[in-house]
Amino acid sequence: MPGNMMRVLIVLYEGFTEYEYQIPILAFHHFGISFDTVSLETPVVTGMIGLKASLTKTLAEVDAEDYTALFLPGLDRSTREQVMQNERLIALLREFDQGKKLIAAVCGAPTLLGKAGILKGRRFCSDVQAHPVFEQAIRVQETAVQDENVITGLGARIFHFTALLIEALAGKEKAVEYQRWAGI
Amino acid sequence: MPGNMMRVLIVLYEGFTEYEYQIPILAFHHFGISFDTVSLETPVVTGMIGLKASLTKTLAEVDAEDYTALFLPGLDRSTREQVMQNERLIALLREFDQGKKLIAAVCGAPTLLGKAGILKGRRFCSDVQAHPVFEQAIRVQETAVQDENVITGLGARIFHFTALLIEALAGKEKAVEYQRWAGI
Repeated sequence: MPGNMMRVLIVLYEGFTEYEYQIPILAFHHFGISFDTVSLETPVVTGMIGLKASLTKTLAEVDAEDYTALFLPGLDRSTREQVMQNERLIALLREFDQGKKLIAAVCGAPTLLGKAGILKGRRFCSDVQAHPVFEQAIRVQETAVQDENVITGLGARIFHFTALLIEALAGKEKAVEYQRWAGI
Repeated sequence: MPGNMMRVLIVLYEGFTEYEYQIPILAFHHFGISFDTVSLETPVVTGMIGLKASLTKTLAEVDAEDYTALFLPGLDRSTREQVMQNERLIALLREFDQGKKLIAAVCGAPTLLGKAGILKGRRFCSDVQAHPVFEQAIRVQETAVQDENVITGLGARIFHFTALLIEALAGKEKAVEYQRWAGI
């Protein structure tokens, strides 16, 4: 794959928040941003309200080199601690961060970034309050925030988070178009 | 069931917009609003982006008398015309309207209300432009609107639509709480 081609890797885990996955990918479709969705481990993943995603690949089956950005939707608190223990995902996050690749996580997913140690000294926001993994991170009262290559946002502000993601992936002009469409 | 108990019936059809289903039901959960989700015809229904809902009942298996409100999420344009031909759904919409029960439809779903003839002379909004079923309806430039017992709204303003729905189902105070949470 050409090195200059933007391609987003999305990982779905048990308990993923369906709308926090759907709203960004509808924007990716609209703006022609390429992406692949993989499951963390199993071919079928069940979201927070029970909707099921059938995926053709798991995280183990993709080559991280093929991607320039990573997007993690939020997840149900009942599955969060278990997903945080997934060594492959945590290693992937560190690899993307070391490569200065874009990492975007919304709602509860910033805990995964915290677990990987990549929020240290960085500004972030999350719906999860007071978690040990956030101890060395700088929480900000924003709807969504970018600090270097890391974007985080609140689930109830998914359109704001998506706008910031579109800005990072496709430029300011597309982000403004998106904001206009979303009325934000 | 006691006649004064509020209970919402939600119908999912092929191509339903996942987030337009999820965001309102998360609010229903939060505010203790009872609801049942049924499929239009088949036990498994596939949404717009391919997420699958497994449901225990179809529309034919529920008694409309048990419900005081009906909510219809939006749907993919590829399935819309077919869903509009579903006589059971159209008859149900007319029955709810005649009984002055609340009917809420977002994004593309107001076409179903138009097909049932219940938008005649009523103010509505929808993401679908210029459809014959809207000929005698009054389109308004709002994020969401209530006219008598009928609420319609735009998909990209799902939080506004949900706030109006919460106001109708649980009162102004809850709606204000929801608006504050959603930042609208």
